[in-house]
Amino acid sequence: MINLSDIVAAQQRIAPYIHKTPVLTNRSLNAITAADLYFKCENFQKAGAFKYRGACNAVFSLTHAEVNRGVCTHSSGNFAQALALAAQKRNISAYIVMPRTASAVKVAAVRGYGGIVRFCEPTLAAREETAAAVMAETGARFIHPYDDYTIIAGQGTASLEALQQTEPPDIVMAPVGGGGLLSGTAIAAKQSLQQVCVVAAEPKGADDAFRSFRQKQWLPSVNPETMADGLLTSLGERNYPIIMQYVDEIVTCSEQAIVDAMKLMWERMKIVVEPSSAVPLACIFENKDLFINKKVCIIVSGGNVDVGKNWFGS
Amino acid sequence: MINLSDIVAAQQRIAPYIHKTPVLTNRSLNAITAADLYFKCENFQKAGAFKYRGACNAVFSLTHAEVNRGVCTHSSGNFAQALALAAQKRNISAYIVMPRTASAVKVAAVRGYGGIVRFCEPTLAAREETAAAVMAETGARFIHPYDDYTIIAGQGTASLEALQQTEPPDIVMAPVGGGGLLSGTAIAAKQSLQQVCVVAAEPKGADDAFRSFRQKQWLPSVNPETMADGLLTSLGERNYPIIMQYVDEIVTCSEQAIVDAMKLMWERMKIVVEPSSAVPLACIFENKDLFINKKVCIIVSGGNVDVGKNWFGS
Repeated sequence: MINLSDIVAAQQRIAPYIHKTPVLTNRSLNAITAADLYFKCENFQKAGAFKYRGACNAVFSLTHAEVNRGVCTHSSGNFAQALALAAQKRNISAYIVMPRTASAVKVAAVRGYGGIVRFCEPTLAAREETAAAVMAETGARFIHPYDDYTIIAGQGTASLEALQQTEPPDIVMAPVGGGGLLSGTAIAAKQSLQQVCVVAAEPKGADDAFRSFRQKQWLPSVNPETMADGLLTSLGERNYPIIMQYVDEIVTCSEQAIVDAMKLMWERMKIVVEPSSAVPLACIFENKDLFINKKVCIIVSGGNVDVGKNWFGS
Repeated sequence: MINLSDIVAAQQRIAPYIHKTPVLTNRSLNAITAADLYFKCENFQKAGAFKYRGACNAVFSLTHAEVNRGVCTHSSGNFAQALALAAQKRNISAYIVMPRTASAVKVAAVRGYGGIVRFCEPTLAAREETAAAVMAETGARFIHPYDDYTIIAGQGTASLEALQQTEPPDIVMAPVGGGGLLSGTAIAAKQSLQQVCVVAAEPKGADDAFRSFRQKQWLPSVNPETMADGLLTSLGERNYPIIMQYVDEIVTCSEQAIVDAMKLMWERMKIVVEPSSAVPLACIFENKDLFINKKVCIIVSGGNVDVGKNWFGS
């Protein structure tokens, strides 16, 4: 397991490569929720999401022996871009295994950051097989998007940085998918502050973390379905015990609340966020009592979203 | 006329009431334009636009004799909300004359800031008549949205602040409608920096400032038509001579470039901006040679836009 000192070390390691992102407040969202909200805007992070923090920590933790052989992952989401960009910063190869059904935009984004794309069939077995073949061929080090302590330490720097930018909050809140962000957030918050609560936010349509937490048993997702596509993944093996140890509560929200929260963040805060980033605010809307009069620090995970899509009707 | 010292005084006067907005940079927009762009994000300003700076300067410049009788303006745009909010901060009345055709959202926003709305027919004559009646009845002081030196000084604080936040740019750029922002920007930039160029950006569909500048003659707009609805107004009487004295160049852009620039700002910068705010970047796209390898500070005017509208197709 890792602890706060690993996150502090990660913060120093990645500082030259990442953006220190702003913490925004909004009068009108405070009025709507009757809470005091602080939004840590990782949508402004390089490559558009917090994932770049973990990817940088992994890439800049490689030994000299490893570095020449590059890194490899399988992802069709934000981690693919994040790892490609981090590898580009260290001038090493990043082999990204993507399903051949991945959108052209995502493939182009990975290639734009210098990533070497290897296509596979859109199944988990094919992904793992293709990644294994790439590693056998190149000797590249496999970097898991969330089930990896170096990644968890990197993701934890977002809330560590937020806590350095604000007065101590009552609650720190992050969305949960695979649990990389949540487990890093939980360690950073609970080991820095005596009194803080860590609350995770999850869509009802992909509530494996919620169920695992309640039943104290690691349960996988079954046919998850949510517009918050960054949160479809099941909780990782290394992430689950950290969450059981440090997270105080997991709350859930409906799809309608995600749309409403996302629209309000665009409209009132003037920031573009992806659906996953709206899940914490959506959970506040649907679990108001937990948050009334509380000072809440929310990790806004990312802003990689198709702005050409008609998200909110007209 | 006013000068830098009035803008410095305005900055001190309004400092307790406004947001110090961030200056953002973006690797991908720099690559597209081959320039070094600094975006001063007034879309994050209170009430969602730079207009709040001028409104605050006007409201907090009122004498004790004037203050009890309140302020009045006619506007259906960002200035209406800005003046209402500034008046609320000083705990005085703001009478806002709006055409009865104004959208319910805009009326609600003005009322949300405590503004007292008086409706009129949607003609300039009716607006002025209704404003005159309100002033006769209440003794309220009329505040023009842009053709007013106190307003100009207030709007100039956006670029003064930007220059304090960045290394000296080669070019400072602002959109131009009535010219409140542009004239304040021009005085602030030219009187603070020896070498700087001030460039104004205007849609081809509402190019009265461009034509006036070229013909050295104050020409009004004739049937202006542009999606950048904040820039439909003709140049003000006090704004025109300031612009002739301090502005180095006015460039124009097509409607398509405005959509493209707005989409890129949403997508790459993760910020919500209104069409008027995208006009400077659109002008850079269509006048590239002027900006290549230049350090350009762009005033992003505001973010009050219907996010439910399908702006970019899908």
